[in-house]
Amino acid sequence: MQTTCVIGIDIGGTTTSLALVDRTGGVLGEATLATHSDQPGHILVDRLCDAVATLLAALPPHTTIAGIGVGAPNACYQRGTVENPPNLNWGASTNLVALFRQRYDVPTAITNDANAAALGELQFGGARGMDHALVITLGTGLGSGLIVNGELLYGAGGSAGELGHTTVDPDGRSCACGKRGCLETYVSATGLCRTACELLAQRREPSPLRDLSFNQLTSKQVYEAACGGDVIALAAFDTTARILGMKLADAVAHTAPEAIFLSGGLAAAGDLLLEPARRYMEEFLFVSYKGAIKLCRSELQEGNGAVLGAAALAWCEVDKMPLQY
Amino acid sequence: MQTTCVIGIDIGGTTTSLALVDRTGGVLGEATLATHSDQPGHILVDRLCDAVATLLAALPPHTTIAGIGVGAPNACYQRGTVENPPNLNWGASTNLVALFRQRYDVPTAITNDANAAALGELQFGGARGMDHALVITLGTGLGSGLIVNGELLYGAGGSAGELGHTTVDPDGRSCACGKRGCLETYVSATGLCRTACELLAQRREPSPLRDLSFNQLTSKQVYEAACGGDVIALAAFDTTARILGMKLADAVAHTAPEAIFLSGGLAAAGDLLLEPARRYMEEFLFVSYKGAIKLCRSELQEGNGAVLGAAALAWCEVDKMPLQY
Repeated sequence: MQTTCVIGIDIGGTTTSLALVDRTGGVLGEATLATHSDQPGHILVDRLCDAVATLLAALPPHTTIAGIGVGAPNACYQRGTVENPPNLNWGASTNLVALFRQRYDVPTAITNDANAAALGELQFGGARGMDHALVITLGTGLGSGLIVNGELLYGAGGSAGELGHTTVDPDGRSCACGKRGCLETYVSATGLCRTACELLAQRREPSPLRDLSFNQLTSKQVYEAACGGDVIALAAFDTTARILGMKLADAVAHTAPEAIFLSGGLAAAGDLLLEPARRYMEEFLFVSYKGAIKLCRSELQEGNGAVLGAAALAWCEVDKMPLQY
Repeated sequence: MQTTCVIGIDIGGTTTSLALVDRTGGVLGEATLATHSDQPGHILVDRLCDAVATLLAALPPHTTIAGIGVGAPNACYQRGTVENPPNLNWGASTNLVALFRQRYDVPTAITNDANAAALGELQFGGARGMDHALVITLGTGLGSGLIVNGELLYGAGGSAGELGHTTVDPDGRSCACGKRGCLETYVSATGLCRTACELLAQRREPSPLRDLSFNQLTSKQVYEAACGGDVIALAAFDTTARILGMKLADAVAHTAPEAIFLSGGLAAAGDLLLEPARRYMEEFLFVSYKGAIKLCRSELQEGNGAVLGAAALAWCEVDKMPLQY
């Protein structure tokens, strides 16, 4: 019997992951490559295609590739490009879709990692069967992908879902995007560290975090200190959760999702972040939404959530093709 | 030749308007009734049906009604009801759709006034041909309707688009909804007056507004003072525009509309509000949206925008019906 799968690829600044994924989210094979961010994009595509060939060689001979999906920073779905990626030395624009199409004549698409995560949650995770959902990725920054009427919302120009750059405080923290007070300067791994640093200045309690420089401080250390009962670290999580809860309530007032899923490194903090975020969100929700919005962790495994998301994108593209008889 | 039209109805606390509207937004007949908010909803429906009969009698004999659309406060599209309307003594729930269906066996739907305004803009106004747009109604409060992929977004439970209750300041002004710092406590006719009052306290310049009590102050007076060059009134508009611009930039980061349309009484202030709101929105926009989002006044006439919106809803329902041969 012929087995059909898609290639899901997640490109990061350091590591790139790929997997061959079937219709139900089953992983038939997977691999991880160093991205070599100093090399141009076409070299990475060559290396990825070699890795796919190796994976295919280990599978039954009638395994076919139906599509390719790529999650990458600064990806443009409409143009098929990665544009000015902050962590890759690829220049203004690299048409990854065109590069892959030279190797595989199958539907191929690219989107940013948060959109891919949303598609993964919709096809293989907790958002299965939902018409309206929101997926937030909490890593170095804050990404978001919106499911509306059962589909990923691209919006005009393909750029919907940049919740990380909504404003928390117009006179607030300086953001890498050039604005001030963006949500991701508060709610992200780096935002948590900035909040901890601010609290160390404002408060007087002793804390193991007082022995670390700003550059030494990581979200993992804040997490571990909080687990050990450190009041500064606990307050940092509470502050982060309050701002997250407030802005999630805003997001609900825009698109009214049934559920919100948190994924990415900081979501791994679990109830330390989720429990207060739920409480604060509920407080900030407009009366007609109160008690009706689920806030939970992504149901995709931390490890391969990103490639599953990219694979979900590939299956979406396959499904858009006219049936062939 | 047979003429087909729909009935568009806009129910307000004081006045209810109706119009017979053809496919292109042409008004074949219109009427205005006192709402009599102390009487139950079924009485209003009876009076509206009488008014429709009077309008029809003045039209060619082969004019047929294809559908009915109603815009009303606290309307639920999914249930066809008006629920706990703040300005009508109708109780917990009145199924207006069922009441109309007893009189006319045609597709009938109800939604809140801001959603109706968005549908009107999409079918008959400035959003014609757009896939993604946002319509903001600025009256006593702030309402919003979102066009996504060429359709009105209802979201889970039919409650998408409550931007008036997103948070500007978690410790800010008390809102009628029970929360603090909601957008509509700053950006609306009443919000403008509250801001003017605050500025009278903070600043020392003479102003004609200093002779008015809080209860006497109206947005029209603030507008007229601003037109006369009053610095307090001008500052009130600038503050209002800054908060509007900031929250519109947030809205763009959610759904990425091509254009945002302002309607309702306060939008009539024109460039006094629009010009600074455009400037501030541009300032707050995330880099990938800058220069790409139009902010303008509704292209529907102030007078009958609401009934045209309700008529647009009716045409949407008619179009959902299977074709009859």
